[in-house]
Amino acid sequence: MKRRALFGGAAAVGAAAVGGAALGGVMGGADAAATGPLTVDFHGPHQAGVSMDPQAHQSLLALDLRPGIDAEAVRRLLLLLTDDAERMTRGRAPLADQEPELAAVPARLTVTFGFGPGLVATVRGRRAVPTWLGPLPAYRTIDRLEERWSGGDLLLQVAADDPTTVAHAVRLLVRDSRAFTTVRWRQDGFRHGAGTHRPGTAMRNLFGQVDGSANEAPGSRAFDEIVWRTGADAWLDGGTTMVVRRIAMNLDTWDEVGRAGREFSIGRRLADGAPTTGGSEADDVDLEAVDARGFTVVGPAAHVRRARPDDAGQRIFRRGYNYDDATGSGLVFSAFQADLERQYLPIQARLAEQDALNAWTTPIGSAVFAIPCGVRPGEHVGEALFT
Amino acid sequence: MKRRALFGGAAAVGAAAVGGAALGGVMGGADAAATGPLTVDFHGPHQAGVSMDPQAHQSLLALDLRPGIDAEAVRRLLLLLTDDAERMTRGRAPLADQEPELAAVPARLTVTFGFGPGLVATVRGRRAVPTWLGPLPAYRTIDRLEERWSGGDLLLQVAADDPTTVAHAVRLLVRDSRAFTTVRWRQDGFRHGAGTHRPGTAMRNLFGQVDGSANEAPGSRAFDEIVWRTGADAWLDGGTTMVVRRIAMNLDTWDEVGRAGREFSIGRRLADGAPTTGGSEADDVDLEAVDARGFTVVGPAAHVRRARPDDAGQRIFRRGYNYDDATGSGLVFSAFQADLERQYLPIQARLAEQDALNAWTTPIGSAVFAIPCGVRPGEHVGEALFT
Ligand code: HEM
Ligand code: HEM
Repeated sequence: MKRRALFGGAAAVGAAAVGGAALGGVMGGADAAATGPLTVDFHGPHQAGVSMDPQAHQSLLALDLRPGIDAEAVRRLLLLLTDDAERMTRGRAPLADQEPELAAVPARLTVTFGFGPGLVATVRGRRAVPTWLGPLPAYRTIDRLEERWSGGDLLLQVAADDPTTVAHAVRLLVRDSRAFTTVRWRQDGFRHGAGTHRPGTAMRNLFGQVDGSANEAPGSRAFDEIVWRTGADAWLDGGTTMVVRRIAMNLDTWDEVGRAGREFSIGRRLADGAPTTGGSEADDVDLEAVDARGFTVVGPAAHVRRARPDDAGQRIFRRGYNYDDATGSGLVFSAFQADLERQYLPIQARLAEQDALNAWTTPIGSAVFAIPCGVRPGEHVGEALFT
Repeated sequence: MKRRALFGGAAAVGAAAVGGAALGGVMGGADAAATGPLTVDFHGPHQAGVSMDPQAHQSLLALDLRPGIDAEAVRRLLLLLTDDAERMTRGRAPLADQEPELAAVPARLTVTFGFGPGLVATVRGRRAVPTWLGPLPAYRTIDRLEERWSGGDLLLQVAADDPTTVAHAVRLLVRDSRAFTTVRWRQDGFRHGAGTHRPGTAMRNLFGQVDGSANEAPGSRAFDEIVWRTGADAWLDGGTTMVVRRIAMNLDTWDEVGRAGREFSIGRRLADGAPTTGGSEADDVDLEAVDARGFTVVGPAAHVRRARPDDAGQRIFRRGYNYDDATGSGLVFSAFQADLERQYLPIQARLAEQDALNAWTTPIGSAVFAIPCGVRPGEHVGEALFT
């Protein structure tokens, strides 16, 4: 069993400040008395919004380039949005912002940019689009994908501890993109209230499960190895890949299952997220442990057994947000990994093949994005794509 | 100019604990380091969720009684929901809750019940429905009401500092109502992050305005006089009336107006909510102040001039929440007042007739509810309606 530094609150920031250059700008913890004035540095070797204790609120936006938008126009768009993000993440109003006061509460605002296949093709031509940058393979056993939650040319991940900050940032980014793009989809989510989360525990999803425990701590060496890309396509060096899945959760049928059955479906306890094989939340589930009768404690279809890499290279970093709105309830699942084909696809294929959770969950949206490296002052995001 | 104790955070709770019995159960401030464990007492002379510093997140649900539901069934429903609310507001799981951990973070959860005309008619007969309990008069100059945001037999106002707490509470309340009611509408809103709000200031709406400054401080004598009902219908003694208006805000056309124009439309400054006639946020706008040329500083159509009672009896308590979702952006406006006809209607009529804000705002939903008095241990909400 491996001890893992669970992040959250002040502890997280301490750990992060040591381990992760990208976190140098975080000036406090998610659970500090008031996160309103806290800022996360937009600049750095990696984009902000990945290697950090996730903010309480998030909005994901997928934009599509309008017909006729060429590489030069994409650059102008990225220049504009970079400028907006730089200002707003510091608590300053972007240009021509008529409500500068709404920008004055950064609340750890981050704006993270991702490129879909359409944008990369527009800038560098179709042949420059990596094979993995496009729809995931169809998982016919589980997928019920809807167009309205899938795909997109440009992803904006906008997250902060204050939902008003997120709403304002989304609005300005959409306003400044309007001449270049249309909104394909928007997916809002929440983890907890900014001041209500117990540091050192992962969030709870709407099944009541502690979700995210097995993640490596942002800023740790293990995290960096899992997430940041080196080598391969030069324009993605220092970047990562991102999968977004909108997964509907059937809370009614989940409720019908007893507590033991629900813990068995995962391999972790509902009460505190600890493995059903013992230990505490920070411990890994012991897949080999057997009960008195010689059966493995964690069943063959348990989510954690199916998700756990048989190959140490298959690791991902999950950053999920709950959604609960007119469209239903579920998880805006997102995962970051340096190499999507090697790290993510095998896990997803195993889960599609067999996973106890599939009885209550249905993927209804899916998208893949390339997250370019961080931005230096004076640059725009994705600058390397244009060289 | 009158100084007003602006509420928020620790200061608010201090003030409230002195002034308002209903607030005795609030065990800390909205902006304390961690509001997760804080509870607001469900019991008391008045229902919880009105006389308090509003929580960060809110969901309003309007339920309609199913055909065939009679007074006895309504009583069973209220018994069930009272029990749910009692437990959840203490951080305990309701009966048959399969996700008790989601109830374990009360985060100042309150559940407030309101009765529409249909429910009162079912329990006491049509003639018992007060004249004011029904649709507001049609305001043809401004209203663009949609059925899907209007009316309802039973209102549940569910609010907490953690959106996961709200989502879970809504789910259980809807589950336990299902045999008796259908969901007519649901309106979610936010004010700020639980840990991101500067105590002592009202929230900002999506126009960037400080909104709520002129409200009397919950728990103050002025507040109690404005909100709580005495005399009139016995079953509403100690209760209040509630108006819910869903008001769409056109952020794009609002943006086109200069800053001075936007401040002129209200009579308060965007920077800090202080009156354009001077002073600080806690001061009233001085409607008589004149400029060098002898014109009143606050114009004839300014929102505050139109909204300000010419009669000291016309006062209301506003508890608005921002919404920003697939249906658009705006305010889930709600107002509490002891006497709707005497206090609310004259203000609303004046605003419909003339109000600079009308250029950018459109009411798209409207509903009125009777909020019965508080609940004693062992009782169900609305017990007096059955006597
Ligand atoms: C609504 C859908 C899902 C729910 C509710 C869910 C829930 C959970 C829970 C409760 C855990 C255990 C605690 C933790 O380590 O986080 C877990 C672990 C995990 N999940 Fe999921 N999950 C979902 C979808 C997915 C998907 C789509 C993937 C990847 C394709 C995935 C990959 C993983 C991985 C890699 C682990 C860690 C396994 C380990 O090493 O212990 N999950 N999930
Ligand atoms: C989207 C719609 C609305 C917006 C954006 C809005 C905004 C504001 C703002 C910024 C203020 C000044 C600060 C404050 O005291 O809160 C204010 C004051 C006020 N508003 Fe509104 N308001 C809206 C709708 C309404 C409605 C529908 C009513 C009642 C029918 C109302 C009644 C009042 C009252 C009574 C005041 C205080 C006036 C005073 O005594 O100074 N408002 N509103």
